[in-house]
Amino acid sequence: MTSEFDAALALTPREGGVYDAVLDHGWHIGGGINGGILLATMAEAIRRELPTKPDPLVVSAHYLGPSSAGPAEVRTRVVREGGTVGTAEATLVQDGADKIAVLATYGDLERLDGEVRTSVEPFEIPPPEECFSADLNPAASPPLMGRFDMLFDPASVGWALGQPSGSGEIRAWLRLKDGRDPDPLVLLTMVDSLPPVVFDLGYTGWAPTLELTAHVRARPAPGWLKVRAWTTNVAGGLFEEDCEVWDSSGRLVAQSRQLAMVPRRR
Amino acid sequence: MTSEFDAALALTPREGGVYDAVLDHGWHIGGGINGGILLATMAEAIRRELPTKPDPLVVSAHYLGPSSAGPAEVRTRVVREGGTVGTAEATLVQDGADKIAVLATYGDLERLDGEVRTSVEPFEIPPPEECFSADLNPAASPPLMGRFDMLFDPASVGWALGQPSGSGEIRAWLRLKDGRDPDPLVLLTMVDSLPPVVFDLGYTGWAPTLELTAHVRARPAPGWLKVRAWTTNVAGGLFEEDCEVWDSSGRLVAQSRQLAMVPRRR
Repeated sequence: MTSEFDAALALTPREGGVYDAVLDHGWHIGGGINGGILLATMAEAIRRELPTKPDPLVVSAHYLGPSSAGPAEVRTRVVREGGTVGTAEATLVQDGADKIAVLATYGDLERLDGEVRTSVEPFEIPPPEECFSADLNPAASPPLMGRFDMLFDPASVGWALGQPSGSGEIRAWLRLKDGRDPDPLVLLTMVDSLPPVVFDLGYTGWAPTLELTAHVRARPAPGWLKVRAWTTNVAGGLFEEDCEVWDSSGRLVAQSRQLAMVPRRR
Repeated sequence: MTSEFDAALALTPREGGVYDAVLDHGWHIGGGINGGILLATMAEAIRRELPTKPDPLVVSAHYLGPSSAGPAEVRTRVVREGGTVGTAEATLVQDGADKIAVLATYGDLERLDGEVRTSVEPFEIPPPEECFSADLNPAASPPLMGRFDMLFDPASVGWALGQPSGSGEIRAWLRLKDGRDPDPLVLLTMVDSLPPVVFDLGYTGWAPTLELTAHVRARPAPGWLKVRAWTTNVAGGLFEEDCEVWDSSGRLVAQSRQLAMVPRRR
């Protein structure tokens, strides 16, 4: 049986690097389809255009407008392909309008030099059985919440009960509910799947992303991912949100940063 | 008299959003022209295409190959322009080859909501008169070093004497040597002007950037900029380098992250 993640990434190729996609309402959240699954969908299209560079190393996405459930197309173009890395651009188009513009550089994570000198320590979070599901009331949750097992550190989920910690950080365990193991494309989804980190500062509502860049640094080991997002610079109606993803082997497998708009409600 | 920074950004417009530039050897460093001045040059071209959105808010650049002194062209295309932000793409082309691909979202920093809730503290660095110039031996320094006053925190400049601190962080005061005050385009240059932060881990040599994204969060006040760069994840031959820039008023005016290749020498 195809996982629902893989089903979301199903593409029908046309000529000239164009792919037809169907965006599924199951990934809807806030004002549109989740930016993470859209990024993975575009990354899948680029992957097919760079067959000897199977992994996204760094992906930059500028979000131009919200997408909704239904047909869309991903238009790709290889900008430059070298021996070890290749760069491509892609645009997600829906209803005749550009919705997301992406630049991405791909390579082969398995061929990278193996030395790992990560100096940042993995963050602390209680084990999953001591964490809280975001899906407290599945009937009232946005569809996206049904795609993940998302277990929050009790110390960073007060916002869900109207008691934000004020630290501007959210920590959680994450995996796909369909049981599919993580890979680089799943990581691209995970870096944009937690609630906006400004919820922990008392804001609520839609926080549209202007831009998100993700680095994928290793293919993740199977099992739970440990995800931490935080902000340090809420200013002028915008905030940066950094995210790091650690796999079950304790490796820092992805880092991302986005610039997003602060919700109006507080 | 035109500042040498403004001279570097001089562009001759042609039809169709194409601009002719001349890359000056004065900005050469390591394997090519400094990525920061090239980013500012491309940002200037985009700025002209989005006249009602004068400031880069977020710029993502994928570096495809080194540029050298001489003629080049910047090809721009507006992807989407809305009421408050606009997004454009640009490519730097030299000798018939794409050298840098950029996506950028612009707006008007003066029109942003004024509230500032920056929670990260400004980093500590001794006053400029107690810091060390990188230009210890101007005759032997790369040309780029002559474009800046760059004064390093004594605690983070041991690498220049063969004694890297090992912390993976470099802190410095920065301003243009020509006396021009900083603006958003100068910030785009500054986030990619310090030596590669892996020098502080004992590596030396050319560290080509694969991708750099910069957020410009405010127009900087006149005077010195305080710049800190650091890495936490040297792995698989790649490293992330984060950079933050504080202006003389104590505001965090820019944040950037790049993914670069670890130099081979150590």
